[in-house]
Amino acid sequence: MADSLNCDLESLSPLQLFERVTEQGEKVRALKAKKAPKDEIDAAVRMLLSFKLSYKTATGQDYQAGLPPRDLVLMNNGTTKEEDEDFVDPWTVQTSNAKGVDYDKLIVRFGSSKIDTDLINRIEKAIGQKPHRFLRRGIFFSHRDMDQILDAYENKKSFYLYTGRGPSSQAMHVGHLIPFIFTKWLQEVFDVPLVVQLTDDEKYLWKDLTTEKAYEYARENAKDIIACGFDVNKTFIFSDLDYLGTSTGFYKNIVKVQKHVTFNQVKGIFGFTDSDCIGKISFPAIQAAPSFSSSFPQIFNGKENIQCLIPCAIDQDPYFRMTRDVAPRIGQPKPALLHSVFFPALQGAQTKMSASDPNSSIFLTDTPKQIKTKINKHAFSGGRDTIEEHRKYGGNCDVDVSFMYLTFFLEDDDRLEQLKQAYTSGALLTGELKKVLIETLQPLIAAHQEKRKQVTDEVVKQFMTPRKLAFEF
Amino acid sequence: MADSLNCDLESLSPLQLFERVTEQGEKVRALKAKKAPKDEIDAAVRMLLSFKLSYKTATGQDYQAGLPPRDLVLMNNGTTKEEDEDFVDPWTVQTSNAKGVDYDKLIVRFGSSKIDTDLINRIEKAIGQKPHRFLRRGIFFSHRDMDQILDAYENKKSFYLYTGRGPSSQAMHVGHLIPFIFTKWLQEVFDVPLVVQLTDDEKYLWKDLTTEKAYEYARENAKDIIACGFDVNKTFIFSDLDYLGTSTGFYKNIVKVQKHVTFNQVKGIFGFTDSDCIGKISFPAIQAAPSFSSSFPQIFNGKENIQCLIPCAIDQDPYFRMTRDVAPRIGQPKPALLHSVFFPALQGAQTKMSASDPNSSIFLTDTPKQIKTKINKHAFSGGRDTIEEHRKYGGNCDVDVSFMYLTFFLEDDDRLEQLKQAYTSGALLTGELKKVLIETLQPLIAAHQEKRKQVTDEVVKQFMTPRKLAFEF
Repeated sequence: MADSLNCDLESLSPLQLFERVTEQGEKVRALKAKKAPKDEIDAAVRMLLSFKLSYKTATGQDYQAGLPPRDLVLMNNGTTKEEDEDFVDPWTVQTSNAKGVDYDKLIVRFGSSKIDTDLINRIEKAIGQKPHRFLRRGIFFSHRDMDQILDAYENKKSFYLYTGRGPSSQAMHVGHLIPFIFTKWLQEVFDVPLVVQLTDDEKYLWKDLTTEKAYEYARENAKDIIACGFDVNKTFIFSDLDYLGTSTGFYKNIVKVQKHVTFNQVKGIFGFTDSDCIGKISFPAIQAAPSFSSSFPQIFNGKENIQCLIPCAIDQDPYFRMTRDVAPRIGQPKPALLHSVFFPALQGAQTKMSASDPNSSIFLTDTPKQIKTKINKHAFSGGRDTIEEHRKYGGNCDVDVSFMYLTFFLEDDDRLEQLKQAYTSGALLTGELKKVLIETLQPLIAAHQEKRKQVTDEVVKQFMTPRKLAFEF
Repeated sequence: MADSLNCDLESLSPLQLFERVTEQGEKVRALKAKKAPKDEIDAAVRMLLSFKLSYKTATGQDYQAGLPPRDLVLMNNGTTKEEDEDFVDPWTVQTSNAKGVDYDKLIVRFGSSKIDTDLINRIEKAIGQKPHRFLRRGIFFSHRDMDQILDAYENKKSFYLYTGRGPSSQAMHVGHLIPFIFTKWLQEVFDVPLVVQLTDDEKYLWKDLTTEKAYEYARENAKDIIACGFDVNKTFIFSDLDYLGTSTGFYKNIVKVQKHVTFNQVKGIFGFTDSDCIGKISFPAIQAAPSFSSSFPQIFNGKENIQCLIPCAIDQDPYFRMTRDVAPRIGQPKPALLHSVFFPALQGAQTKMSASDPNSSIFLTDTPKQIKTKINKHAFSGGRDTIEEHRKYGGNCDVDVSFMYLTFFLEDDDRLEQLKQAYTSGALLTGELKKVLIETLQPLIAAHQEKRKQVTDEVVKQFMTPRKLAFEF
């Protein structure tokens, strides 16, 4: 049996091995906690040591709790990443730090600005409302030119919002909702129109999909986006494959961006190589073009210089750094940006939640039972190995995924602070913290599923039809 | 004066110097022919020698009549071309041979098939008419899969024609008409629909033009194309900048081609470099997509597998070699092709007529007087240096540009043969041959101008509106 087990282990990837070790470690802790018979505990420990040995054989490294294998991560351009540097591009997010990416460093590296208390206060004053929890808690942490948006807004000059999604599958996870939850709030408090780009062409180019399938995913994802509560009179959702062939302005902006960006530039920004297809190489212009209001003549009455604000996760910034570089050269205003942190994978903040790894994700289609099982089984814990140690030394909220998720979804600031103190002091156990998260997420996701059911094909069609919105420009 | 003249000469390009020498040589010949005073002839000869010296200084080569400087021609990828090899790509045609490009070699190099007597006879049988003079005289000389088009045609299966033009200026020259004259004939004899692509996006990307200007050129060029006599019920002319935003099928085919062609491939085919903009790099897919009937759902009722035949100059073949390579991988039939030779510059068949060099071109807007002057002044002659020599040894039709042009435009085979014999034997002088060409071209161009005047904006709009054509598919 040991043999067949090892055989089995040999076929696993380093990340899968990492998970086996972690699981077995938790099993040992559970056995100890319930004071199981000694021989049962000993057997589990032997198994743990065997798993750790397999992990070391596969990776050449000792297993370290909370540090998934990382030196095997290849960057897009084929070189391995710097040992101590976070890697962030539109396709990959990876860090060696269990607390997640060092966002202060990222601000310096990307040349953006921190969303500081002054800016949050200014937003609060401008809208006359309490800022969204994502602002209060640094989940949207970085910006470009948000002060200019506020200058204009305070002078009664309007702007529009642009965000998007790459529809790579029907399944969206809770992390995908972050930009949409925030965008919906921005739309409400500023009362501005919104365009949502579904890059089905990108997914066709990058994945093994037909154009028909990519478009189908776009329409399915639109349902989840609409279920966030957007107002049909203020929101235009479009598929690239569809809208490009129905807009008199979109392609003209795409080709203008394409004229002003060289292969050398996209190679530097996105890590493309000579073996990449020409569709990938020219795609960044397609994500750039909705930053210019002339891509939507039906909404803006053909007006060209309406300011755009883009709420997105920071990994999308490379597209918009490029866009902002090109904008003045094609006579367009630079889009402003609000950047969010990544939504961590269940296994820890070293990487973001990914729909292609079901174990790392809580899907919007998950049942209450699935949510509970996934959190209990996979959510990386900042708690101690034994109850005794936990009570004595307390848990670590900085690396605890359940606590991180609560910062995203628990609205009540006081409750969150209480949980943090209780967990850090050791008064609150890992299982108890997970229970709070489960009880927070289950009703949220159930409510989303209920709203999504009401999004009929007819409603999707309304949102996706190019039309005038309820604004005058 | 000699000093200022040399100063002037130093600022000239090798090609311009070449022309100066050639002109001065003709002047010397003319003076000798009319038995001018000896000192006048001597002065002209001294000037000729001075020009030849400047030419040698600039190029490092002796002047050779009929051989413009060629080793300075850079290929797109930055390497100089092979000494003895013709250079042909969609932007440059250059050969050292005054007879023009070696088309037999090009057929071997490009891997196409020669249009031989058997194929011409088969076309004649299929259409029940005498083949066009462009076929009879080898002006359309190469093809891909024309036999398959005829197989299908003989089995009552229809096809469609696709040709195009890059609208880089308002001024079209007579050489630009060649594919359209032939395409009109094909449309008539086979009774098939035609799509004409005006690549205003390409010209925006390659030239210093706004999108508005490129689109304006496209509309102006459409007038010259329409003046060739196309039937509005069978012809759809489109600007890329315009049509891409109004077609539900065009962009989908573009992105499909873009997924199946790498940067390495376009680098090899078109000589693109890392410094080229991503618009140029992805453009070949836009020229490829009209080869697939699903790019025109309004014409073909959404049908996907209608065979396409592309008449074009051979320098456009790289686009369609790429297209034919991709077609089966995206489930589309390969387009068939008919290739024409290049229309030679007035200065000789070493390069093609180019609108950007006014001296090399007879424009469709030229007056009868301009036509006469250009031919008399610039048309490279295969005649001898003196009348005496010409009468004795005869002229050379293989390098004589006036004779070449007559093979394009003089319909009467017998008359052309008579002219050839008379010129070759020395009975017909250069001036007399030029006179025949002038008298052939002047009425042709005047008639074209008359027809073009009748092409109103309303007519252009009809041709350029996406619509059903008078065919059932």
